[in-house]
Amino acid sequence: MTKGNINVSVENIFPLIKKFLYSDHEIFLRELISNATDATLKLKHLTNVGDAKVEYGNPQIEIKIDKEGKKLHITDQGLGMTADEVEKYINQVAFSGAEEFLDKYKDSAKDSGIIGHFGLGFYSAFMVAEKVEIITKSYKDEPAAHWTCDGSPEFTLEASDKTERGTEIILHIAEDSTEFLEESRIRELLNKYNKFMPIPIKFGTKEVNDPTHEPKTTKDKDGKETTEPHRQITVDDIINNPNPAWTKQPADLKDEDYSGFYRELYPMQFEEPLFNIHLNVDYPFNLTGILYFPKMSNDMQIQKDKIQLYQNQVFVTDNVEGIVPEFLTMLRGVIDSPDIPLNVSRSYLQADGAVKKISSYITRKVADKLKSLFNNSREDFEAKWNDIKIVIEYGMLSEEKFFEKADAFALYPTVDGKYFTYEELYNKIKANQTDKDDKLVILYASDKDAQHSYIETAKAKGYEVLLLDSPIVSHLIQKLETSKENISFARVDGDHINNLIKKDENTISKLDEDQKKALDELLKEVIPSDKFMVQLEAMDSTESPFTITQPEFMRRMKEMQQTGGGGMFGMGGMPEMYNLVVNTNSELVGEILGTKTKKKQERLINQSLDLARLSQGLLKGEELTNFIKRSYDMIK
Amino acid sequence: MTKGNINVSVENIFPLIKKFLYSDHEIFLRELISNATDATLKLKHLTNVGDAKVEYGNPQIEIKIDKEGKKLHITDQGLGMTADEVEKYINQVAFSGAEEFLDKYKDSAKDSGIIGHFGLGFYSAFMVAEKVEIITKSYKDEPAAHWTCDGSPEFTLEASDKTERGTEIILHIAEDSTEFLEESRIRELLNKYNKFMPIPIKFGTKEVNDPTHEPKTTKDKDGKETTEPHRQITVDDIINNPNPAWTKQPADLKDEDYSGFYRELYPMQFEEPLFNIHLNVDYPFNLTGILYFPKMSNDMQIQKDKIQLYQNQVFVTDNVEGIVPEFLTMLRGVIDSPDIPLNVSRSYLQADGAVKKISSYITRKVADKLKSLFNNSREDFEAKWNDIKIVIEYGMLSEEKFFEKADAFALYPTVDGKYFTYEELYNKIKANQTDKDDKLVILYASDKDAQHSYIETAKAKGYEVLLLDSPIVSHLIQKLETSKENISFARVDGDHINNLIKKDENTISKLDEDQKKALDELLKEVIPSDKFMVQLEAMDSTESPFTITQPEFMRRMKEMQQTGGGGMFGMGGMPEMYNLVVNTNSELVGEILGTKTKKKQERLINQSLDLARLSQGLLKGEELTNFIKRSYDMIK
Repeated sequence: MTKGNINVSVENIFPLIKKFLYSDHEIFLRELISNATDATLKLKHLTNVGDAKVEYGNPQIEIKIDKEGKKLHITDQGLGMTADEVEKYINQVAFSGAEEFLDKYKDSAKDSGIIGHFGLGFYSAFMVAEKVEIITKSYKDEPAAHWTCDGSPEFTLEASDKTERGTEIILHIAEDSTEFLEESRIRELLNKYNKFMPIPIKFGTKEVNDPTHEPKTTKDKDGKETTEPHRQITVDDIINNPNPAWTKQPADLKDEDYSGFYRELYPMQFEEPLFNIHLNVDYPFNLTGILYFPKMSNDMQIQKDKIQLYQNQVFVTDNVEGIVPEFLTMLRGVIDSPDIPLNVSRSYLQADGAVKKISSYITRKVADKLKSLFNNSREDFEAKWNDIKIVIEYGMLSEEKFFEKADAFALYPTVDGKYFTYEELYNKIKANQTDKDDKLVILYASDKDAQHSYIETAKAKGYEVLLLDSPIVSHLIQKLETSKENISFARVDGDHINNLIKKDENTISKLDEDQKKALDELLKEVIPSDKFMVQLEAMDSTESPFTITQPEFMRRMKEMQQTGGGGMFGMGGMPEMYNLVVNTNSELVGEILGTKTKKKQERLINQSLDLARLSQGLLKGEELTNFIKRSYDMIK
Repeated sequence: MTKGNINVSVENIFPLIKKFLYSDHEIFLRELISNATDATLKLKHLTNVGDAKVEYGNPQIEIKIDKEGKKLHITDQGLGMTADEVEKYINQVAFSGAEEFLDKYKDSAKDSGIIGHFGLGFYSAFMVAEKVEIITKSYKDEPAAHWTCDGSPEFTLEASDKTERGTEIILHIAEDSTEFLEESRIRELLNKYNKFMPIPIKFGTKEVNDPTHEPKTTKDKDGKETTEPHRQITVDDIINNPNPAWTKQPADLKDEDYSGFYRELYPMQFEEPLFNIHLNVDYPFNLTGILYFPKMSNDMQIQKDKIQLYQNQVFVTDNVEGIVPEFLTMLRGVIDSPDIPLNVSRSYLQADGAVKKISSYITRKVADKLKSLFNNSREDFEAKWNDIKIVIEYGMLSEEKFFEKADAFALYPTVDGKYFTYEELYNKIKANQTDKDDKLVILYASDKDAQHSYIETAKAKGYEVLLLDSPIVSHLIQKLETSKENISFARVDGDHINNLIKKDENTISKLDEDQKKALDELLKEVIPSDKFMVQLEAMDSTESPFTITQPEFMRRMKEMQQTGGGGMFGMGGMPEMYNLVVNTNSELVGEILGTKTKKKQERLINQSLDLARLSQGLLKGEELTNFIKRSYDMIK
């Protein structure tokens, strides 16, 4: 048996880094600015604890493009490196200086904000540069060093005459990466990754009005006023906000700070968010952030993936799948946590204990916030309900814990604009809407306009009618029916109202059995049996002669199929099924029976059927055109 | 100045691999099976060219889980390694054996299918294993070798008594990766990544009916037949199809081979694809594949991202964004190309020359196929039009080249079910539908039912009415209007038909100016001016007394806004605008004017307005319920 050490051939490391280290070349800038930030924060820490006897000052990080020289400069005013430190940290690949630093200062440096994770980041420079220079001067009293490497394993190291403290990285941008010499591209990257990093980042200069100079206004002899133009001065263009709202304590923030930060995050978003949730926890994991509820539309897909994930104020991704429960990915805002493992598979993420805890913490915080909004200002909560219900209803469907908590604040609006919690609704309707088998029937409509006449019929009985119009409502109803006891939901146009909530009352029929049989036969001759099932009912004589209904069960199964999942397989393609409810006590039906000529009978039945179809939105196209023509003639 | 070599500290390489090499741990299996495949294909090549004097046979790759021992075995029957080769290929990290092999055999090995890209793949084993063993016996007459490494840089190498040719990799699965000891998880991975790899992959065994044994049927004394059960035998469970359809020549494939392969790709998909496009090019880049047109719905989002990208029969991703033009991501199928750079940013991909060529090659092939389908079987193409138009129309909008080519096969269906190309349509209608300013007006409807009466009015004039009902149709119309000369599209309900296509004819008005003025004043008293602009027109007396129209321009801008992009900013939120066209020559309008009592006039106007609104789908809710009630009363 032989023993030995695996040998890493250095020649192959740079191609490896270039090819595999990061799938996205653009992140080299994030990595280098993270390093510059760490160098600055480390110096801050050392001056704080007295290990560095220098003035910390107001350091910044500068990014500069030298388009002609094909160079990109990243310069910080941090702690710098001595030649020995360059040897140690740069010439030894994969040696993370941040980890060592954090180790040494582990107690005092805990809240320093040092990023540390990206120890390998410096080498990502070779993804876009054919040559990299480091010019660096340590805060210690030692000469500056100048390191150069062209991506081969060979480097040179010499003295430099740099006098200011800090590190300058010079990237000689490679031929295939010249996009990174464009001002607009670099600005785009800074805006994407570095917008909230803790050290000010300067990218060029800009002209602004001189704040120390008030333009003078003079009057000429005609009394006309002239104001001189603002005096312009040139200032550094700082591209980041080093102290974003989520890093502050909730107690230090006002409403306008939250809405101001929302606009920082989404400058193109003109609508105000409805409310926000400030996340702030440091045990058993570290997590800060602010989530916003925007106005939601009913389209779930398009509003997903707007939440941004940060690690110590460095942007990581806007894909928070697996970290935030799916129903909350419709929210907006920021999550910042050093405890979320990156660069691992999504399936691993979902199985990771810490991530699971984060996800359920977020769910709980959102539920708590909703509950307190409901309790503190019910009126306001009701006013916002339509804009947030899709999130809440989707959450109730997908997260059992959220379903339980939502019982306290989920609202059930009626067609008249009242809002009930489930318990309130239950108490309100149980006396009147419990049927003879002791089951509570909750009536609902999905469209106030389309189901208007059915709603009116139900309201005439003193029933409450909910307005449930979310796309996933059939799934939610199904869930409520199985989790609450002895209730069922019925859409108002599912049957005649007396059949939807069956009581022990009977309306006496004006027709005897023979007449009913005659009517039934007559109707079946005229009404196409493949479209409508005729159903004779003895109703109040003032109610509509003909009504078209669509049985609840089939309709709901079809809807569930269409909105994905659930329902019964194959139902989506079934034809629509309708019943024609005929009021045997109505005057018109009496007239139909009493009419002598077949032709007139048919005409009456057809016109009544057309009106019933109109009421259910089923009269269309040529049939509608003909109906309208007939009706114009009837006016004259 | 000092010079030196950057030093890679080996201790840090394994953590690096574990953390950064691949973001998705599960791909270790793909990598190891790719290596096993390469080892087998290399042997095949060597026996073919006579450099290996051994029997190639029918080698397979076996995957075996040892749940108790917490081990996963990957065993091939390929060329194996000698102890020296283990030293060279395994102990030197980042030394790709495949590249060296391809270099040496570059002429003869060109079509060998050796994967090669994944030279670093072996080390990905350490992402999931705490210890890795290699037991390998070369095809050369040398002793077998046994290599062991626990993820530290130290390895051991000793002799082994393995006698069969090939390599066995044993992964001692780490505590945090036990998911990879589950049969279902491994099967999932094999199915995802290895379903079409070129060497048979065995994963356990399965019971099947013995094909050599025909169950006997016997009759008992009553003449009743009994068939004995099938005899079961145990066979290797081969999880892959080593010769998928796209690797074959189109000439060797029948229709049923293409639809069979579609079912292999999408086992849960029950609908047949409409047609397929076989891609096959080897200059200036290598690309094979089969794309299918499935039946499309109008929802573009949900049907995207079903195309699978392979490299030499190894699954890479189902995100082909940037490689396939966006409008074609709605298709299904497979693309296989070794020339698509992986692990690079999407923005880089889109700028890459080779990828651009691939993308435009695919666009061209799709356009050519559509053209040939159109030319070879127009009837069939027309029948499929509704299921494919969304792709074609979206392509016309987004790719200029495709727009040009599509002129030859894009169809414009009419409400009567005829289909015209643009040129045919132009020739058909130019005589009748050119207005007095010499502009060709193309009439269309978006909904046959909802716009029925308007369509009928246009058809009565002998005009053709197109049926354009895609969600992006307003954008397409806009594009056609700017790229064709002197044409405009007008929806049939945009105005009265005489105004949509203005001719030099005048219908004489039955009313004189005073009467018109009186009518106008009367109407304006009754008709709410915030909802309808009254517009008096002298029309044929048989035409509808009242008609509601919606001006084209505003409606189209609003639609364009709603379907994203284009239109005019802020128009999406504007209220709907309608005109009420009143036929001054109709009998009813005469009657309204002639009626003496104001009350009766109002009743006539309101009932007519209701009928006009009904025709445009604007009578809803309570107003509809009241209209129906009134109408029931009128029947009686």
